[in-house]
Amino acid sequence: MKKNLTLGLFGFGCVGQGLYHVLNETQGLKASIKKICVKDPNKTRPLSSSLFTFSGDDILHDRDIDVVVELIDDADAAFVILKKALQHGKHVVTANKKMLAEHLEEIYFLQNKYNRSVLYEGAVCGSIPILRNLEEYYDNDLISGLEGIFNGSTNYILTKIFEEKKSYSDALQQAQELGFAESDPALDVKGYDPKFKLCIAITHAFGLFVTPENVINLGINNLHDLDLKTARENGYTIKLIARAFKSGNTVYGFVAPQFVEHYHPLFSVRNEYNAVTVEGAFSEKQLFVGKGAGGYPTGSAVLSDISALTYDYRYEYKKIRQVKEVIFSNDLCLDVFVRLGNGKNISTYDFEEFHSGYAANGQHYLRGRASLSKIKEWSQWKDVGIILAPQAKFTKQKQKSEVEDYSLA
Amino acid sequence: MKKNLTLGLFGFGCVGQGLYHVLNETQGLKASIKKICVKDPNKTRPLSSSLFTFSGDDILHDRDIDVVVELIDDADAAFVILKKALQHGKHVVTANKKMLAEHLEEIYFLQNKYNRSVLYEGAVCGSIPILRNLEEYYDNDLISGLEGIFNGSTNYILTKIFEEKKSYSDALQQAQELGFAESDPALDVKGYDPKFKLCIAITHAFGLFVTPENVINLGINNLHDLDLKTARENGYTIKLIARAFKSGNTVYGFVAPQFVEHYHPLFSVRNEYNAVTVEGAFSEKQLFVGKGAGGYPTGSAVLSDISALTYDYRYEYKKIRQVKEVIFSNDLCLDVFVRLGNGKNISTYDFEEFHSGYAANGQHYLRGRASLSKIKEWSQWKDVGIILAPQAKFTKQKQKSEVEDYSLA
Repeated sequence: MKKNLTLGLFGFGCVGQGLYHVLNETQGLKASIKKICVKDPNKTRPLSSSLFTFSGDDILHDRDIDVVVELIDDADAAFVILKKALQHGKHVVTANKKMLAEHLEEIYFLQNKYNRSVLYEGAVCGSIPILRNLEEYYDNDLISGLEGIFNGSTNYILTKIFEEKKSYSDALQQAQELGFAESDPALDVKGYDPKFKLCIAITHAFGLFVTPENVINLGINNLHDLDLKTARENGYTIKLIARAFKSGNTVYGFVAPQFVEHYHPLFSVRNEYNAVTVEGAFSEKQLFVGKGAGGYPTGSAVLSDISALTYDYRYEYKKIRQVKEVIFSNDLCLDVFVRLGNGKNISTYDFEEFHSGYAANGQHYLRGRASLSKIKEWSQWKDVGIILAPQAKFTKQKQKSEVEDYSLA
Repeated sequence: MKKNLTLGLFGFGCVGQGLYHVLNETQGLKASIKKICVKDPNKTRPLSSSLFTFSGDDILHDRDIDVVVELIDDADAAFVILKKALQHGKHVVTANKKMLAEHLEEIYFLQNKYNRSVLYEGAVCGSIPILRNLEEYYDNDLISGLEGIFNGSTNYILTKIFEEKKSYSDALQQAQELGFAESDPALDVKGYDPKFKLCIAITHAFGLFVTPENVINLGINNLHDLDLKTARENGYTIKLIARAFKSGNTVYGFVAPQFVEHYHPLFSVRNEYNAVTVEGAFSEKQLFVGKGAGGYPTGSAVLSDISALTYDYRYEYKKIRQVKEVIFSNDLCLDVFVRLGNGKNISTYDFEEFHSGYAANGQHYLRGRASLSKIKEWSQWKDVGIILAPQAKFTKQKQKSEVEDYSLA
């Protein structure tokens, strides 16, 4: 039987405001907001001031409130709120991917300890119900991999760069003005935001916990005109892709920009849209596409989580219970394009397999298969850009094979 | 806590066989097949003969069996099996869309009466978890519409016609050889199969029951070379689209071929793939793509239903409980291309709004807005083809407006 829920909100940005309005418009959902905790007492609010408070305790200590909906920006503060809410016997709905990625294992145990539910569909790919599907529907399908566009603002930027030939900085600014970008754009463009989401998705897809510092993320912040030229000449686009896959008992995962051919399912996913491809042994490839950035798409996911709580829904983390001894590894080689400016030096011997290289406009392009650890090292150098090859092959790291020395002109 | 389930299968075609193998390969799923009821005693079977029976009662009267998995072709026989299974206290998993569409309201009541669950994700769009998502995830999002490619074999045929310039009959034969087509191809090409699926989806999306005879279906069986030429000249493709949408308290729905422009999300859904676009007030447009025909994709959906029964899942039909007084109506006008051969006559006055017309190669093309009832009447004539205009507008039927007489050459 459905319960009536009383909600306490933390944060009243665009997601919170959208949520408020749709709650009022939805006939079937038995949930109402009792209190909203906000930070700034001087801001004018569109609702009665009696609804607002500046002290979290007004929500956490209110016995009428069943569910804390946490929609603030600060990951550390959000984690404190989450823990206190559970301690006070409240369920939690949150969209804070950074907080979740960093603390998911603890949150898993806290849910058991306090016998309360934490739901966070809004944290991963906005409006796409990917967690619920991984958790419920792909339960016993043998999932072999998932990949997708997990960040709306970088996808928006890349779309504008490719379709409207905008510069990187103009496109970034436009994304920020439209509210698609995080307040710290580095989280988006350096690939942290999609990495947080990937960590969360890995838990629900493969049944293990992996923290963000163990996952390698390359961003689009080092894109160079030469990369765009290479893409255009070959009919490719560039997408920032998060992916994870399982081989035997090992799960691999990383975030990196990639050249994408026109027949790839992610090629036509444009603007602020997100997409996830789920590959199963039995269901083959399935694609989910939906808006991944902006208050309303995230709000719709938050709403579904609240609705799920009216019938006592909890993530069961079934794969954690089912699957034994899965480990996460970065012991992997990828086919990449490495671009480096003058004065940098990467030996062709640094590749596991060197394929080709050329120099143009003061930039060197090296193409080959390199280990993730090398790729990570190079990505931290200034003036080096790394993009995965189209249809990049992934192989386990191996002894460096003998390759011909290639002398850069 | 998860239960161990004992299954009895009816039918052992490609879906049943795939299911059997994946059940053996899946670590987490606590379900095993005890008995399989098949029709033909003379067929050689790939498994021990002790597993098979030719009498349904061996399954229906076996108290060890918790779940009847019904995977036979015959809709009437399937409904008898379903009712008996529920009467005997068994849950049912089925992929029989015709049976479901014809009897869904009764099946809804039978589930309540016998307190047993009937799950049928495999009946709608193969591997795409659309019912579960409509039921669970879009619970309280205000869904305004859904449209999609609900039939894999016609999509395969249309893809081959457009991309490989195959003839209609060659493409149909190829689809049949690949096992994508129903044993009676008329179910596919005349649009009955997607209509059955649409009826089921309407229940879970909008909270009302609608039987197939109330829904209008046009197929692709009357496609003419002139239609293909029109499409190619305009950069369109043709897709057979099922759609339903809600306006106020009224739900509309129908199946019809449509000219589709290249930027439409369904344009690039090719071969045997299915796709569904769900439009919500809050989540905006979301697209789900997956394989819609063939034994394995359907088998994966059946597997997920079985898995869901291990934790007592039932469709709650929440929208039926939430939404009051929704009605289904065909009182609608659509923008269509009507092609008619020599000797046929449709007056331009038969359109609500006549837009244009021309004659070529002995065929007449009339374009305009017509009522669904007229469209249905015309579609039953020989040598008449009807295709929805790209971005067809839908309007409520109204008094016929005065239009200029257009004399066909």
